[in-house]
Amino acid sequence: MNDIERLLAIESIKQLKARYFRLLDTKAWADLTALFTDDAVMDMRESTNVRDESNLFIGGPAFVRNLRGFIEPLVTVHHGHTPEIEVTSDHTASAVWAMEDTLWVPDSVASPLPFKVLNGHGHYHETYERNADGRWLIKSSRLTRLRVDMR
Amino acid sequence: MNDIERLLAIESIKQLKARYFRLLDTKAWADLTALFTDDAVMDMRESTNVRDESNLFIGGPAFVRNLRGFIEPLVTVHHGHTPEIEVTSDHTASAVWAMEDTLWVPDSVASPLPFKVLNGHGHYHETYERNADGRWLIKSSRLTRLRVDMR
Amino acid sequence: MNDIERLLAIESIKQLKARYFRLLDTKAWADLTALFTDDAVMDMRESTNVRDESNLFIGGPAFVRNLRGFIEPLVTVHHGHTPEIEVTSDHTASAVWAMEDTLWVPDSVASPLPFKVLNGHGHYHETYERNADGRWLIKSSRLTRLRVDMR
Repeated sequence: MNDIERLLAIESIKQLKARYFRLLDTKAWADLTALFTDDAVMDMRESTNVRDESNLFIGGPAFVRNLRGFIEPLVTVHHGHTPEIEVTSDHTASAVWAMEDTLWVPDSVASPLPFKVLNGHGHYHETYERNADGRWLIKSSRLTRLRVDMR
Repeated sequence: MNDIERLLAIESIKQLKARYFRLLDTKAWADLTALFTDDAVMDMRESTNVRDESNLFIGGPAFVRNLRGFIEPLVTVHHGHTPEIEVTSDHTASAVWAMEDTLWVPDSVASPLPFKVLNGHGHYHETYERNADGRWLIKSSRLTRLRVDMR
Repeated sequence: MNDIERLLAIESIKQLKARYFRLLDTKAWADLTALFTDDAVMDMRESTNVRDESNLFIGGPAFVRNLRGFIEPLVTVHHGHTPEIEVTSDHTASAVWAMEDTLWVPDSVASPLPFKVLNGHGHYHETYERNADGRWLIKSSRLTRLRVDMR
């Protein structure tokens, strides 16, 4: 891959993650599901502090189904910052993204969650794969935390 | 437009919006005014929840005059995140930006505003145009909200 | 420097600052120390509001030693936004970055600091230099503030 192709890949991956955040926070579940490889490994064990298989998802549909069950009644904002994207071959890449998320439970919602507002900070550790059509997709994601505040 | 020209346009538009945020928050009104096309449509109806023509501005001078009247006595921070920039021709482009803004009313200011601190999250939906000198300018902007908190 | 080289330099400097934030917040002090030129001027006088020579550091080791003494017992998150990077020659560049930082003093820590949580916003004003190996390094940094809240 030459320099221009590498810069194009980096910009494409930035926009892929941008769409991930926007489609998640606007709850566009069908479009969100299309951003992952079939075998994508989404590891939410550390970020949720529930460290068993129930927080490890394979593929977009399983991941988004779970996410939707959790997030649908909430207002959420997820922001990603200063990605360190490394293109590792002509169809693979990896990245670390700094992140912040805030989740609000509306007053009208009877929620089993142990917070009214959650504000978290950490890093996404991800890999990406380019499919046969030339589109970059999320191949794996793991979220580590620097800090989570609940009130 | 070839790949390099497209990457250069994307970087230019990122820096245009970066200047917009910095000049706004440092209150450099004259320089801020120069970032818009003469016919720029700045739509603040949804973001302010005042949905009439008084929150729709045409051109940099009218928009910045209004902004200045509102923001001059305040401390403000506006941040933009993960832009999805699409170059639609050799002189036009569009983007969605995730955003957060915080506005503080200093204790020394007698303000008619219904808050001491406003913290908002949402998305800018924008278009851009390249002028005859090759400079990218903001052609339209509309801010939608995920959440606004006032205290 | 041609257009592609300039785009590559801009992406490299974005990733340099991304590493700076990540290594700082994960307290990877040895790796952090390697990001600066030997003669780097790190000016923390305005950001800390202690405006004497004790807040001006020359070189990575002196800067990181001070930072470590201050930050080691804390939880910190530093985020950078919307960089305006200008490549000024084939081996020099400058930038302004919007930023937010949050510092938490854990309950278990007996701290002389006048806060339990500090949340700041402002801009980094920086220069960079490319060394003989082609790696970009931080040559100077000065942090100005829009707002600092302590509680």
